[in-house]
Parts: sequence; C-alpha cells; structure tokens
Amino acid sequence: MSNKARNLGIDIGKLPTGKKNCITDVAGVKVGHVTLDYELESEGEYACTGVTAILPHGENLFQNKVTAASYVINGFGKSAGLVQVNELGVIESPIMLTNTFGVPQVMQGTLQYMLDSNDDIGIKTGTINIVVGECNDGYLNSIRACPVRPEHAIEAIQKANSDKAEEGAIGAGKGMVCFGYKGGIGSSSRVVKVERDGGDDISYTVGCMVLSNFGTSTEFLKEHYKISSSQKESIHKPNDGSIIIVLATDAPLSSRQLARVIRRCGIGLGRIGSHFSHGSGDIVIGFTTAHNIPHTTSELLESRTQLREDHPIMNQLFAAAAETTEEAIINSLSQARTTTGRNGNTVHAFDFTQ
Amino acid sequence: MSNKARNLGIDIGKLPTGKKNCITDVAGVKVGHVTLDYELESEGEYACTGVTAILPHGENLFQNKVTAASYVINGFGKSAGLVQVNELGVIESPIMLTNTFGVPQVMQGTLQYMLDSNDDIGIKTGTINIVVGECNDGYLNSIRACPVRPEHAIEAIQKANSDKAEEGAIGAGKGMVCFGYKGGIGSSSRVVKVERDGGDDISYTVGCMVLSNFGTSTEFLKEHYKISSSQKESIHKPNDGSIIIVLATDAPLSSRQLARVIRRCGIGLGRIGSHFSHGSGDIVIGFTTAHNIPHTTSELLESRTQLREDHPIMNQLFAAAAETTEEAIINSLSQARTTTGRNGNTVHAFDFTQ
Amino acid sequence: MSNKARNLGIDIGKLPTGKKNCITDVAGVKVGHVTLDYELESEGEYACTGVTAILPHGENLFQNKVTAASYVINGFGKSAGLVQVNELGVIESPIMLTNTFGVPQVMQGTLQYMLDSNDDIGIKTGTINIVVGECNDGYLNSIRACPVRPEHAIEAIQKANSDKAEEGAIGAGKGMVCFGYKGGIGSSSRVVKVERDGGDDISYTVGCMVLSNFGTSTEFLKEHYKISSSQKESIHKPNDGSIIIVLATDAPLSSRQLARVIRRCGIGLGRIGSHFSHGSGDIVIGFTTAHNIPHTTSELLESRTQLREDHPIMNQLFAAAAETTEEAIINSLSQARTTTGRNGNTVHAFDFTQ
Amino acid sequence: MSNKARNLGIDIGKLPTGKKNCITDVAGVKVGHVTLDYELESEGEYACTGVTAILPHGENLFQNKVTAASYVINGFGKSAGLVQVNELGVIESPIMLTNTFGVPQVMQGTLQYMLDSNDDIGIKTGTINIVVGECNDGYLNSIRACPVRPEHAIEAIQKANSDKAEEGAIGAGKGMVCFGYKGGIGSSSRVVKVERDGGDDISYTVGCMVLSNFGTSTEFLKEHYKISSSQKESIHKPNDGSIIIVLATDAPLSSRQLARVIRRCGIGLGRIGSHFSHGSGDIVIGFTTAHNIPHTTSELLESRTQLREDHPIMNQLFAAAAETTEEAIINSLSQARTTTGRNGNTVHAFDFTQ
Repeated sequence: MSNKARNLGIDIGKLPTGKKNCITDVAGVKVGHVTLDYELESEGEYACTGVTAILPHGENLFQNKVTAASYVINGFGKSAGLVQVNELGVIESPIMLTNTFGVPQVMQGTLQYMLDSNDDIGIKTGTINIVVGECNDGYLNSIRACPVRPEHAIEAIQKANSDKAEEGAIGAGKGMVCFGYKGGIGSSSRVVKVERDGGDDISYTVGCMVLSNFGTSTEFLKEHYKISSSQKESIHKPNDGSIIIVLATDAPLSSRQLARVIRRCGIGLGRIGSHFSHGSGDIVIGFTTAHNIPHTTSELLESRTQLREDHPIMNQLFAAAAETTEEAIINSLSQARTTTGRNGNTVHAFDFTQ
Repeated sequence: MSNKARNLGIDIGKLPTGKKNCITDVAGVKVGHVTLDYELESEGEYACTGVTAILPHGENLFQNKVTAASYVINGFGKSAGLVQVNELGVIESPIMLTNTFGVPQVMQGTLQYMLDSNDDIGIKTGTINIVVGECNDGYLNSIRACPVRPEHAIEAIQKANSDKAEEGAIGAGKGMVCFGYKGGIGSSSRVVKVERDGGDDISYTVGCMVLSNFGTSTEFLKEHYKISSSQKESIHKPNDGSIIIVLATDAPLSSRQLARVIRRCGIGLGRIGSHFSHGSGDIVIGFTTAHNIPHTTSELLESRTQLREDHPIMNQLFAAAAETTEEAIINSLSQARTTTGRNGNTVHAFDFTQ
Repeated sequence: MSNKARNLGIDIGKLPTGKKNCITDVAGVKVGHVTLDYELESEGEYACTGVTAILPHGENLFQNKVTAASYVINGFGKSAGLVQVNELGVIESPIMLTNTFGVPQVMQGTLQYMLDSNDDIGIKTGTINIVVGECNDGYLNSIRACPVRPEHAIEAIQKANSDKAEEGAIGAGKGMVCFGYKGGIGSSSRVVKVERDGGDDISYTVGCMVLSNFGTSTEFLKEHYKISSSQKESIHKPNDGSIIIVLATDAPLSSRQLARVIRRCGIGLGRIGSHFSHGSGDIVIGFTTAHNIPHTTSELLESRTQLREDHPIMNQLFAAAAETTEEAIINSLSQARTTTGRNGNTVHAFDFTQ
Repeated sequence: MSNKARNLGIDIGKLPTGKKNCITDVAGVKVGHVTLDYELESEGEYACTGVTAILPHGENLFQNKVTAASYVINGFGKSAGLVQVNELGVIESPIMLTNTFGVPQVMQGTLQYMLDSNDDIGIKTGTINIVVGECNDGYLNSIRACPVRPEHAIEAIQKANSDKAEEGAIGAGKGMVCFGYKGGIGSSSRVVKVERDGGDDISYTVGCMVLSNFGTSTEFLKEHYKISSSQKESIHKPNDGSIIIVLATDAPLSSRQLARVIRRCGIGLGRIGSHFSHGSGDIVIGFTTAHNIPHTTSELLESRTQLREDHPIMNQLFAAAAETTEEAIINSLSQARTTTGRNGNTVHAFDFTQ
C-alpha cells in the first residue's frame, strides 16, 4: 500500500477521487521520471535531482496539440514556454519539470526529442514551444554543477509510457523540500459529475501533479489535517522555494475557461499553509485533453466544445482544482522518503504516523 | 455626399471597405445617438455632449449575449464594465459612449432599460453588466454640470434602430476634440475574404467606431495622408484626451482570438500619430456577432465555431483592425463640423480641402 | 463586548492584531456607513442595503493621492475605477461599497462630493477616478428599485470621521449573505514587526475590511474554526455572490509591491472555504498611506520609499493579507445580526455560540 | 559612413537622436556580438546565426540589478526569463538574443557565465534569472542543427566591452529577414529634455536595439519614408517571423512606469507596417539604468527616484519609445548586407539608394 495521504487517514475536500487518485486518472495522461542520485567528482558535491515528463497524451503532441493555460501565482521563477501558452492557449510539447538550473538542458533535450519526431519543424513549418517548470533543489543537489543533461529529458519522455505515476522523492522531485521536510512529486485527482434526468450521468476527471518545494515548518497548517506531529523540520531557514502545479482534465474547456479553473489551484496551496512567499516561483500549467487540435489542416473553421459557463459543473471543477492541489501536496510529503544529498545534507520525510 | 475621408481622396490601408464603410456593415449592428446642445442656466455653461449606443444586434442582449473582449491601450480612463467582459468573454448590454462624468448616469439609464426589458434580472437570475466608454469633453462641454441624464441613455438605445450611423460632432462625439481639431464619432469597415477552390468564397466584415478625443496638433502625421494643411489647431494645449474604439466583426472568434484582433487597433491609433499619451484613456471594446450565447439553457455543452488560428485570415483580421481604427479616426475628423460650446470656446473642423 | 470572532474564541493566524483589530488601525483610515432599512411602496419591496465609504486619509484625496493597486480574484463583478488604478497605481477618491445596482448612483454621489471639494476638476485640471465595489444583495434588498441614491454616498463619506468602524449588517453590508448566513461588513488587522539590533523596532499595520456576500453553507470550512454548529443556512441555493476586500497598510510599498501583497488576500478567502465561484465578483482593492502623492507639483522627480523586496517583512505582509482577509470574513459573520428584508425573506446570523 | 537610415536621408520622428543614434548612447550600456557563418557537415546545412549580448551596465549585474519591465506585443515566441521580470521589476543578467532553437544553449552559457562570476548563487543565495529573446532564422540558418553553443553566449558577453555597437547581419541578426529583405540588428536613440527656469536643463536618453525578423514585403510602408524602391523581396512567403525590442533609458522610472513606456514600442513597429502577425513573437524588454539595486543589503527600506507621472516628459519618453523602435528597425534593414545561408538561400539587402 502506498503512502498516499488517504491511506494514512487524511481526507481532503468533498469530491470523490479518481481510481488511482493520480493525474493519470485523466485518460491518456502519462508521466515519466528520471532520477539522478550519485556523487559528483568534487568532494561533497552530489547529483540529487532529476527530470519529470508529463505527457497530455501518448500521440505526437506537436501534431495534435491540447488546449492549455498557465497561471503565475508568484513569479519568482524561471519556467519556460509560458508566453506562447498564454497567447495561443495550446500546449504542443511534453510538460517537463526539473531543477532551476536544469531548465536549459531539459529544454534542449525536449527540443531534440520533438525535432527527431517531427521532420517538418523549422523546415516546412514553424518552430515549437517547449514548456518547462522548475524548483530550486540546491540544499540537496549540487545545482551549480548542472548534472541534468538533455538525454535525461529524452529518457523521461520515453519512460512516460504507462498510466501509473510514482510519487515522492523521484524524478524532478528527488531533491525538493517542502515545509522543511522531504517533498517532491505528488498527485491527486477528483471526479465531477453531472446527473441527467433520463440519461446517463456525465463525469469529468481533474488530475493534479505537483513538484513541491516551498514553505517553512511554521507555515504548515498541520492542525487542519489532525496531524499532531511535533517533528522538527530538517531545514530551519530554507530558501523560499517554489511549487509547480500541473492540472489536467478531460472536461471540455476553452483556454479562457481553463485559465479560470487553474487560478483556483492557489486555493489549495493556501489551505495547506503557503503564503506564496516572495522568493517562490509558484506556477500552474493546465491542459484539457478534450480537444485534438491538429498542427495543420485545410480547414478554415474549428468547432470547439466547451462547458456552459453557468452550469454548476464549473464550480465543481473549481473545487476540484483546489482539492487536488492540496491533496497532491500532502501526497508529495507522505510519499517522499528521507533523502541525503550534497555535503551530507539530509531532509527527513514528514512522519505522518505520529 | 458625406465627408468620409475616402470621398476626400484619402485612402487608408489595402483591404476593401464594406458597403457603407461603417461599423453597421457588420450585419445586425446598430447605432443610436442623442446629442445635447444647449445653454445651461449659469453664464457661459453649455451642454455640448451626448450619448451614443452601439448595439451588437437588435435582439435582447441580456438573453442573447455576444462573444467579446476588451483591451486597455492606456488606462487613464473611467470606462465601466470591463472587469466582467475580461472574465467571461461576453457582452450582455448595449455598448454606451458618453463624456467622463456622464458615465454614472448612462450606466443608470442603461441599467433601467435592461431591467425594463428583463423581468428576471436581480430576481430569478443574477445581475447585468453594463459597458460604458468615455472621453473628457470638458473644453466644449460643462462636464461639472453633468448634463447627461439616464433618459438620454435610454433614448440613444431606442434610436439605434437603423443600419445607418451618423458620424462627427454627434452623440457622445458632440464635444470631443482630436489633434486640436473637432473630433468625435467616426467609423470605417473592411471585408476580409477567403478564396476556396471549387467553393464559394467566404468573407467576414470588420467594423470600427471610435469616439476620438486625443492628441496634439504636432502629433498628427498629416504628411502620411498627403494633407498639406497648415491650419492651426483650435486648442493649443489640450488635456491629454482619450479614445474609445469599438470593434465589431462577424468572424467566428473565441474571446481569446478576439482579444488578439483588438490589440491591433493600437496600430491604427499609432499610425495617425498618437503616442497613447499619459492622460489618455485609450480603450478598445470588441465583439463578434458570430455566436448567439443564450443567458439560460438546459444544455451542459456548447459548441463554438472559431477560426483556425494559423489560417492567413487571422492576419487579415489583424490588418483590418488596424486599418479600420485609423480610418475611423480620420473620418471622425472629416465628418465633424466646427462646434462652439462652453464659454464660447470653439473648436474648428480640420480643413481637408486645403 | 463586540461579537468579534476573537471574543468568541476563534483565533486566526499567527500575527498579532492591531489595537482595534480593524482597518482603522492603519493610521488615518476612516470608515462611514449609511444604512437603508425601510419598506418601499410596492408590496413586499424593501430597501435593505446601504453604502460604505472607506477613506485612506482624512485630507482631500484628489489633492493628496495614495499608492494603490487592485486585483481581480474572479471577475464576475461590476466594480468601477479599476482600470485607472491599475494604470497609475494611485487612488484619488474614497473607496465606496454598495449593492450591484447602486454603483451608478454611488459613483454619481461620490463624483459630486469630489467636484464640490475641488473646483479645479474638469476645468483647470483633468477628471477624477471614482472607485466603487459592489455585491448583489438581491435576496434581502429590492435591488431593481435602486433605493441607493447619490446623497447616500455623500452622507457615507461625511460620516467617515472617526477611527471606529462598525461591522456586520450595516452600510453596504446591510443586505449581504455569506455561506447562507447573514454576512456584510467585517474587519481585522495585523501588525508586522522588524526587530533591529541597537535600534527601535519598526512596525507596520495591515488592515482589511470586507463586504462578504459569497459561498454556500457546505463550502464553509467550519471545522477549521472548531465550530460544531449544525445550524442550517438561511438560503439554500443563493446566487453565487461576491466579496469586496479592501486592504490598507502604512508599509511603504510601490504599487507593484502592493499588488503582490493583495494577491494574497485570496488565500484567506480560500481558507474559509470559498472556491471563487463562477458567479462571484471577488475583488481586492489595496492602498498604502505611506506616500503622499500631490495632484500637482512643480517637481520633475519624486522619491518614493519602498521596502526591500527580499526583506523577510515582505512575507509577513503576505501572511497579514491572508490572515486579515480570513478574519475579516469571520467577523462579518459574527458581527452581523439576523435581518429581514424583501418579501419577508430572513437571513439568520450564524450562531457561533453553539 | 555607416548605412544608418539618417545617412540615407530618412528621418524618423521629431525628437533629436543621441550622439551615436544607438542604444549605447544610454551611458553604461554595452553590446557584444558573436556571429556564426560556416558550412555544417551535412550538405546544404549552414550555420548562419549568432548571439548578441546587451549589458545594462558593465558591473556585475547579479549584484547590481536594474529596474526592468517586459511587454508581450504578440506572444508567439519562446523568450526566457519574462515571468520573473514581470513579478519583480528587475533584470539581473545580460539580455541575450539568438535564434529560436538557440535559447537553451544561450541560457546555459549565460548561466555558466553568471555562476562563474558569482560564487554565492545557488549556495548562499538564491538562483538567477536569465533573459533571452529569440527570432526564427530558419530560412538562412540550419536551426535544427542547433549550431549555437553555450560558449558563444559567454563570448558575446565578454565582447560587450565598448560603447560602440555594430548593426545589421551580425550576432543574433546574422540570419534574420525583415519584410522579405535582410534584417537583423538595428539601433537608434533619442534625447528628451526638460528646460528649467534658472537652472540647468535635464535630459534623458532612450536607446533601442531590435532583432528584426518580421513582415511581408507588402506590409512595408515604404511610401512613408519616400522610398520608391520596386525591389522584389527575397522571400515571397516567409514564416511570420518575430521581433525582439530592447529599450534602454537612464530616466528614473519605476517598473510600472517603464512598462508604460515600452508598451509604446508597438507604435513604432506598427508605423513601419507590421500588424503583429499571428506567428510573430513580438516582445519588448526594457530597463533603466537609473537605479542601482544591490542584490543584498542590510537595509529595510529603499528610496527610488522616479519621474512625476504627469510631467510632460512622460509623453516625450512615450514618443521616444515609438521613434527609436521605428528607426532601429529601419536601421536593421539599411545596415544589413545581402546574406547567403542554408541551401544557398540568399536574402538581399534592401536597396535604399534606388
């Protein structure tokens, strides 16, 4: 049995979870991790980091784009690709997560992967927009040594071939710290439902995956989860840290509607105790798999299905964004194991069993 | 023959105009003006102002909303209703224009009109969002006296019943000043076309109406229009003024796409000489008549048609936004007549015949 | 003893409150209410509404502006004046609160008040930007009858002459409903402190006032406040409602910094249970009294003091924004009394004593 | 004599230029180029690209940051670093320009350069935000081969050691195409002046550098410059292209004020004929050298000098942003030489002498 918070008796919110309580409950979404965990040549230096790839679907993302949106909760961050996501409302590459100084290498590897899969890019058609989110894992990882390489990004994409997704101190989450305890990758999902008279119910899934690396011990609102732990945090004064939140859904939403939904992720982040601290890059990237948007077509017009904005389902989706974010963060804590990295620095897993 | 700039030999841009070269070339769009032009009781005080109503269609706008967007070029302005337009991407009321201190009264009158037409507002359903744009006509009009009243707004809406639209020193344009000459209401339109092999061509119309009240004489790039006039401006140092630009189209665009189109209106404003001066409230309000969005429905889903974003027609629409804005401003100058208002202040029409 | 939540044993957050735990703890800030509470002529119709004026300081606000910012949490709202606040980063009028359809009349009254206090507006200088926030009190108040008049706005401003501020079902809060219980005006404050070696400590105050009118009973996270009430809500399915949050501080912040601080108000709103529902106009208006920005001056340059952005005090201010918002909402519930309005509709005060 | 447009008889705007009519007229600003121009191993493949580094000053930019802002005219682009610039209003690295697929390598090289110059980054202090702008030079350059390497970025920074700046087909501009003719790097400057009674005049400089790569031949408004050329463009249907505009000034502006100034760069871009086409990444990055913002300090407060927003100098700065952008683009055309790259593709310089 995994250490998902629900298995430890912590329930978040009111909506039912998906089958796996994971972002991969959204049909088609796949996640791959590459974890780096080894000593570097210089004394005390250690690669304690990695790359995580989130694929909105298993097909060629450049040829079949998804509707997307991004939202900057606090912009002390170095994410790549948001300008074009905001302009066009689509994502056309895997969504990559890594450490702050790994962004250029992960961009390069993902670019290489997409070029290899698409002969036309840059020749017969335009360029491609790569999306990368990051947090600073410098307490455990020797970020100045830039151990992440382009091939790690390619490998993470290639590994994203099942609908299971590991959580905790893995992939980009390997070296992350949350509230002074071991954080990293966490995930959760919700199912929202419309009951229809004389017809089948319609349901949509919302899945969230976070890369958690924020907060001080005193900010953690443990009491809201009936956790009585008096465990000391591993890092007393961490740098401000960050969180990347990836929200997936199969609900048919325009990019404007999706932007509204993902703005609610900040609610979940706030409920667990964050105040979006000054030095935190708190960023949400959202997509829906509801539309298949071909890169090229001979058509002039598209017909996009979207939810009636005033339907009560919208408020359910808003709640789902908040609830999955909150629970994904808790899961990133409960699934992570104590980790030792650079200079022997150790960050302890939060002990939920106390 | 009207004093449209084209009749005076001034051609703007490359795209063909619509039949009337007016915002009402977009099928269904209607415009109504109420002009105030009389002495007030206090000596020297004069009502030289008015209200203009632009109706996206002739039906009940609250019950049948249109896709919309707004764009703030420079935000030294007091327009009403933009927050909700930005959030939801719809307009559900007539678009009203008036002077700066007329905004509350025009909001009140428009609200009253909409309440009278919709028994359910505020009782069985929510409230309504009124959209009002404004410029400061204080050189000619006694704005401190607030001569515009709610009933003028209602009357302007009621008068918006034909597909003709007068321009110049009329309605909200009565007291406006542009480049130191008489400005006010101006309009223009463009037709963009997609040629289709073996099928009928498809065309869309873009129409623009401006309320022009900006600029100094030296900013006016007369030489670009081969106007050799050495005519002195009427006001040497006007306040910074403003411009409200209303862009209408029948092209099927999402609100995000429409927002992209209306951002190009600033190009037209810049080409005629504006630098979006500090004290100017330069604001664009756009809508498309392509979708009929019912206020209530039992449906969960909507299907919205929109243009393929990479189709060359998008760039044509961008050019149309720039060209119609530029030409509408020129028309606001060429159609306006010399006007005398408060304290005998006179603003001369620009003499295009020199 | 007032019904402030703290007096009922509910503590929010970790920072100490100001002396009065009220927005008026920020030196100079004043609040005035006008409450309408009477039958209208038509049967069942009732004026159950009002106007609240928040004055950043007691001097002429047009002549001495304050640094300001606004933030739209969810834009289903009809607030006035935000465009110019965003462009220039200043507020130059009282901040007015009222019901949705009272906005035009309150704008008009506030405009009239400011014109009467400033002979130069619209004659020798430019116009003035009036800021009004609103919520829909249509369950208790006959909003279609528009009982709020311009003179009520003027009276509210004139009454804002002490540093005490009443809370609950008063002023603009008279007819508001929160989580299905009686809501309205609530306030709270925090003090943040910098300890300095060998010098005096420096402290800043953050004060918040809300107009609460949002949420369903099931959203209210009562358990977080150890409230075991099983009291049924008064309205089972309210419209989505809204909240206006006014945040005041004396900390020296640029408008950009202030915008960062007020973005954290959404944390407090989320912690109490809101998901920023679709039909909610959730808007924050913030100002700091730290700078006195004269309307006119012969100077070319200004020197503005602001906090070092990386100083830990910034994170304290962020926490203060979240905490005061949350506690002000709780106070709006605990201070409000059961109220009967239109058609005999009654909304019960939430019983915190259970 | 250089091929600056002014030397060819083309005057833009009304404000006087700086001494060199170049971004380096802003004291302290330095520019370095690295140009790649060689055959690659595969037949027909060619490195026809480069890197340009713009340094706001010659000191350590991480330790001494500058006030900054960015503005997305059209977001079909892959620029890096804008999220943090927008949040904090500072730039702390050189501003780098390159081709679209060179962004990761240039980020990596610039990161390496900054790490080498700052031992504390990532260890004793936080991370660093690298700013990179890009255009697609794929017609002349084999972008899929990614010939730009990290060391080219480092070299460009090191070469930025004089106050002269070459223009045309150089650095990042080597492979760029503008209006179907050879474009690339162009620069221009303006001086704005405040005359003071009984005191010395005060003047500020605005400098602009562009990387031009946009537009079709028919969009180029040649007639506005009295250029009668009937020269055919080299590329009949180019991809939509892009432009990066870097605006520098020594005027004391807050980041909010600077954001207002750089929004006017779009005016210059529009005046030369652009409609900000769909596939164009049109992005402005602005900074002022007026403040020296130390990375660390023991101070709680800062005092930032800024211009009185209502001073007429603001409108002069607005005009300067428009004029320098327009002239820098013209200079990028007039200074560029005919260039042959990938597959023998040749792009001809525009012949201004006809």
